[in-house]
Amino acid sequence: MHGRVWSCIVSGARTWTVGVTGATGYAGGEVCRLLAGHPALRLAGVHANASAGRRLGELQPHLLPYADLEVQGSGAEQLAGYDVVVLALPHGESAAIAARLPDDTLVIDCGADHRLNDPAAWARWYGGGHAGAWPYGLPELPGQRERLAGARRIAVPGCYPTSVTLALAPALAAGLVEPEVVVVAATGTTGAGKSVKPHLLGSEVLGSVSAYGVGGVHRHTPEMVQNLAQAAGRDVRVSFTPTLVPMSRGILATCSAPLAPGTDEAAVRAAYEKAYGDEPFVHLLPEGQWPTTAQVLGANTVALQLAVDPDAQRLVVVAAVDNLTKGTGGAAVQCANLALGLPETTGLPVVGVAP
Amino acid sequence: MHGRVWSCIVSGARTWTVGVTGATGYAGGEVCRLLAGHPALRLAGVHANASAGRRLGELQPHLLPYADLEVQGSGAEQLAGYDVVVLALPHGESAAIAARLPDDTLVIDCGADHRLNDPAAWARWYGGGHAGAWPYGLPELPGQRERLAGARRIAVPGCYPTSVTLALAPALAAGLVEPEVVVVAATGTTGAGKSVKPHLLGSEVLGSVSAYGVGGVHRHTPEMVQNLAQAAGRDVRVSFTPTLVPMSRGILATCSAPLAPGTDEAAVRAAYEKAYGDEPFVHLLPEGQWPTTAQVLGANTVALQLAVDPDAQRLVVVAAVDNLTKGTGGAAVQCANLALGLPETTGLPVVGVAP
Amino acid sequence: MHGRVWSCIVSGARTWTVGVTGATGYAGGEVCRLLAGHPALRLAGVHANASAGRRLGELQPHLLPYADLEVQGSGAEQLAGYDVVVLALPHGESAAIAARLPDDTLVIDCGADHRLNDPAAWARWYGGGHAGAWPYGLPELPGQRERLAGARRIAVPGCYPTSVTLALAPALAAGLVEPEVVVVAATGTTGAGKSVKPHLLGSEVLGSVSAYGVGGVHRHTPEMVQNLAQAAGRDVRVSFTPTLVPMSRGILATCSAPLAPGTDEAAVRAAYEKAYGDEPFVHLLPEGQWPTTAQVLGANTVALQLAVDPDAQRLVVVAAVDNLTKGTGGAAVQCANLALGLPETTGLPVVGVAP
Amino acid sequence: MHGRVWSCIVSGARTWTVGVTGATGYAGGEVCRLLAGHPALRLAGVHANASAGRRLGELQPHLLPYADLEVQGSGAEQLAGYDVVVLALPHGESAAIAARLPDDTLVIDCGADHRLNDPAAWARWYGGGHAGAWPYGLPELPGQRERLAGARRIAVPGCYPTSVTLALAPALAAGLVEPEVVVVAATGTTGAGKSVKPHLLGSEVLGSVSAYGVGGVHRHTPEMVQNLAQAAGRDVRVSFTPTLVPMSRGILATCSAPLAPGTDEAAVRAAYEKAYGDEPFVHLLPEGQWPTTAQVLGANTVALQLAVDPDAQRLVVVAAVDNLTKGTGGAAVQCANLALGLPETTGLPVVGVAP
Repeated sequence: MHGRVWSCIVSGARTWTVGVTGATGYAGGEVCRLLAGHPALRLAGVHANASAGRRLGELQPHLLPYADLEVQGSGAEQLAGYDVVVLALPHGESAAIAARLPDDTLVIDCGADHRLNDPAAWARWYGGGHAGAWPYGLPELPGQRERLAGARRIAVPGCYPTSVTLALAPALAAGLVEPEVVVVAATGTTGAGKSVKPHLLGSEVLGSVSAYGVGGVHRHTPEMVQNLAQAAGRDVRVSFTPTLVPMSRGILATCSAPLAPGTDEAAVRAAYEKAYGDEPFVHLLPEGQWPTTAQVLGANTVALQLAVDPDAQRLVVVAAVDNLTKGTGGAAVQCANLALGLPETTGLPVVGVAP
Repeated sequence: MHGRVWSCIVSGARTWTVGVTGATGYAGGEVCRLLAGHPALRLAGVHANASAGRRLGELQPHLLPYADLEVQGSGAEQLAGYDVVVLALPHGESAAIAARLPDDTLVIDCGADHRLNDPAAWARWYGGGHAGAWPYGLPELPGQRERLAGARRIAVPGCYPTSVTLALAPALAAGLVEPEVVVVAATGTTGAGKSVKPHLLGSEVLGSVSAYGVGGVHRHTPEMVQNLAQAAGRDVRVSFTPTLVPMSRGILATCSAPLAPGTDEAAVRAAYEKAYGDEPFVHLLPEGQWPTTAQVLGANTVALQLAVDPDAQRLVVVAAVDNLTKGTGGAAVQCANLALGLPETTGLPVVGVAP
Repeated sequence: MHGRVWSCIVSGARTWTVGVTGATGYAGGEVCRLLAGHPALRLAGVHANASAGRRLGELQPHLLPYADLEVQGSGAEQLAGYDVVVLALPHGESAAIAARLPDDTLVIDCGADHRLNDPAAWARWYGGGHAGAWPYGLPELPGQRERLAGARRIAVPGCYPTSVTLALAPALAAGLVEPEVVVVAATGTTGAGKSVKPHLLGSEVLGSVSAYGVGGVHRHTPEMVQNLAQAAGRDVRVSFTPTLVPMSRGILATCSAPLAPGTDEAAVRAAYEKAYGDEPFVHLLPEGQWPTTAQVLGANTVALQLAVDPDAQRLVVVAAVDNLTKGTGGAAVQCANLALGLPETTGLPVVGVAP
Repeated sequence: MHGRVWSCIVSGARTWTVGVTGATGYAGGEVCRLLAGHPALRLAGVHANASAGRRLGELQPHLLPYADLEVQGSGAEQLAGYDVVVLALPHGESAAIAARLPDDTLVIDCGADHRLNDPAAWARWYGGGHAGAWPYGLPELPGQRERLAGARRIAVPGCYPTSVTLALAPALAAGLVEPEVVVVAATGTTGAGKSVKPHLLGSEVLGSVSAYGVGGVHRHTPEMVQNLAQAAGRDVRVSFTPTLVPMSRGILATCSAPLAPGTDEAAVRAAYEKAYGDEPFVHLLPEGQWPTTAQVLGANTVALQLAVDPDAQRLVVVAAVDNLTKGTGGAAVQCANLALGLPETTGLPVVGVAP
């Protein structure tokens, strides 16, 4: 259906240089991994203040083709010469750097700084002044692909909002469910980044599942609310509970909402088939097959399945994504492809490394 | 607070013989493991039709003290001589055996056959005629401990219903939430038993999370509905989604319901402290601390925490149990203790094997 | 150093059709996964007797681009029309099929049938008559690359022999160690294939490590002996112990041998740098950095490191490979590239999906 | 065979108070866990300089019965009042504290300070002056049980030396193998303690195996050499490679040595049966059954199996232990039992929490 996964650019075609800052972290590393297989984007420099001067190979041993790159600082002046700059930094650090980059540089922010439209939401959830919203890098939303074509500033969605938005937007948009959403998502440990905290030690996470950020305090919540409200055309309430499970990558989001009067499964399925039938990266699985995170490991793929529960009167949609690929680094490359006029699927694997 | 974990019976005190059928499975094996540390219950025989004649050590290598026991068949005549019989069999197999055991034998059924009160529910979810309900082995429910004292037939709850019931019953009983429950539970692979199915292979579950039984089709659902409706004193709807995570044991159940008008977190916390303050096996953790399945591994403990989400207007309660211990085998021993007049905590660890 | 990972063929270049039999297993699935990213090899059909008639998507849900392919039987007549046939079958099943395929079809056998040179060794380890040796698909051995160029029958090495041979051949060839080799290798569960056996259940392997095939009985042993003896130019004894660890993919082989008189670490390092300095898929890591299986996950890469232990007077070499990629499916593609005259690295990722 | 696992002390029997320092770490926490089930040893205080003043429950959430204990400093004056003091501290910290504790206090050191007999070995491997050797807490060595009875200073062995010594001592003592030992051991992450280092993050260890301390540099090596040389009655060379695998607890040690002339498997098996036939915690498994770390999880058990490889002319012995139980905390309790004149098995589980 979707044909060849890896697009191919004929010799002599244009290539673009890419600089990645935060390249020593998990999201930045994933961008580098994907660039190693991209025919038109060339990783030209890696940046990270804390590790400046070290070989990338010491910090990201899997990035063998780039092992000898020296990590540079991540000031705007050090990032100025690239065609494309990917920012994979903690929230609050992107805006100042981005403001000092040339307008015609394609800047793709994997952080939260430019995702929220509402300055009040930013102030409440992150604190301080808002740097302003950028085009939102979720091409699968209606009309969004067009907004990203040719853009030079793009905000990559959070990993949880990607999975939850794609899981519920079609049902909300079609009025098939009430806007009272409950999401419980399992995530691998890389979702917490490379921060060295006791509860993220292998000894603590192996063989154990835990909840965190319960009760509506996770910072990805307002982004979900924003996206789902936009889809629904009215206010949406989201109860979101993330849980940490013993795997390194992957999100499985179990999303549900009360059925609107008269909704049946056929109607829901039809809405999702219409929404995603032509999408290269979003797959509604055949009936009876449920998503696993393994099937999307390392791939820019979202796997979806849905069921209507007649007793509980709820729609349940389950979405699987790799939080580092379609959840972050793959989305960054997908957006870069769109912004630069490349085929959207260029350099992006859709087959997960399973099992 | 709860003092010594392992009770101690003075020399010369009475002991009871126990026969375990289904001893070659995970639930049966867990009962045997706990009996190895129990001062008054003595494992006297192991049974399992499929493996009759083999040494238990071949099939349960961890049960070293019982390695040389020969597995016997599981017919009623072979189980007739014990003081206590534990049935750890697939649903539908217990009733016929139990019917032929002496009335004064303590029979503890780890299967589903005698859990549901409503024959129509049994017929819908399991099919066929219902064998009738037995006293329900969840001593932490109001009044239930008294019903179990001296009983000779006890139905051990399902592992999911144990976690979900204990997580939500106090709030429903106190009218603090609306009876529209959403549960997403993560379970380790032993929850599926020792059945050799492709999707339970290590290769499939390692590094992967998946959903199954979505849309209200899991057979533990009616048991949850029964328990929660009893607690609430009115009908309750339960949307239940189980997910399979890469660990062998443990359930983390994330349970939520809409707040009733006027409910605040203090009221909820007070209700739970009242319900469980004196319970030896159910622990509401200090505020800010969230349950992990590791902390209850191999222990007969339920760890709970709760939060009120003012934006989503929901109560979220998270419960961690070991599906094989408090979820099955430990509950069986706890019930046996109660039925036989032993201290309820005899032989039951409360400290998980963490990390 | 190794430049672009994914080679690119200009439009209009020739492509070859590939049929994969055993496509529903783990090795066959990996071949399909890699073909999805290969610009010149086109997966044209999938075969597996036991699942004939089913959609591939039911059995290999991650292979989304091929989900709608119907699995066909794996008789020679059904495989006859392809340019390339990859056999990913249990040992003993390849030879009969291969014998009936046209001579000019490129046949790549991922099984053991054609790996051993010595019919007596075959008879001892596998039983029955030997089908004869084919060119051995380990291009990194001296002179082997040339033998594979243009070949039409290739035997892909076993996953353990690949890691052990590459780990020790340079030291043995240079006479730096005595031919008394000890190997202990950790493998993920996919090494055992998709067979549904109790000890491979997630419940059994999660949180547990075990040894198997101890005492020289693993069938990969004679292949290691063959390769290492060839490298050493004399008899080699190999003590091989495989262990099963809780991950789905990967081998970490810890290989050691007594130092020959006068050997120091510098000499060893020099021998390995000479052997592998120009190899695209074998990487001697910088001193102080030890291989992890994560860094090669899904990649056609071998990561090596070595140390000389002056107290024990042994050389220790540690090798990490993905048993399904460089250990099987990636090697198959690498060999196909060589046989067809394509750049050897075409379509083969070298960056692991880490972390 | 070994009868009841949990010994029982009649009411009114003496109890001893225990103070544990390093109680917030993994080894100290394991001692506390086991004390919760011990009828004669009462945990009376927990100590750890870095966390003094905090509730133990914040740091060790599984230790529910002790959650409200306040962590105290670990100076000698703060440890002076107990009958038994367990030191679970980093190497080099025990000696100074122990020197200031009363002579009649039973002091059990889980650290390395008092394990090595040779001051030169201490100086080489740890640096600085040696504090002197204490009775070595491995009761299963010949004559050692008697040395520990009534002792007031005991050095608990390292976790690797426990497994390797028990695996090879009988063969070396009987002259069945040559003293050229090769050990490759897989360990769970708790073996590295609770230190917060990047390579111990869940993201790094999940799905990955790695080697570390290769080439004879791991500090447990001299302790193995000491024990095995003592068993052999002559010098022994040990090549030791530890590997880190994705589980929290457990060691699987694969140990081999060249066969002495004339050795056959029957002779080896006889030597091991003689050595361990009456041991409550060391189990030579029935032929054909190989140890798994799961079967000893949380138990004070060592599971062993052996094979003679006639081609490689080596004996291979595989040992499984829980590094925190028989590897550390369980050994501490076992030694305390012996020193205090309690039955050796008191309070020590032998059945692992499997699966």
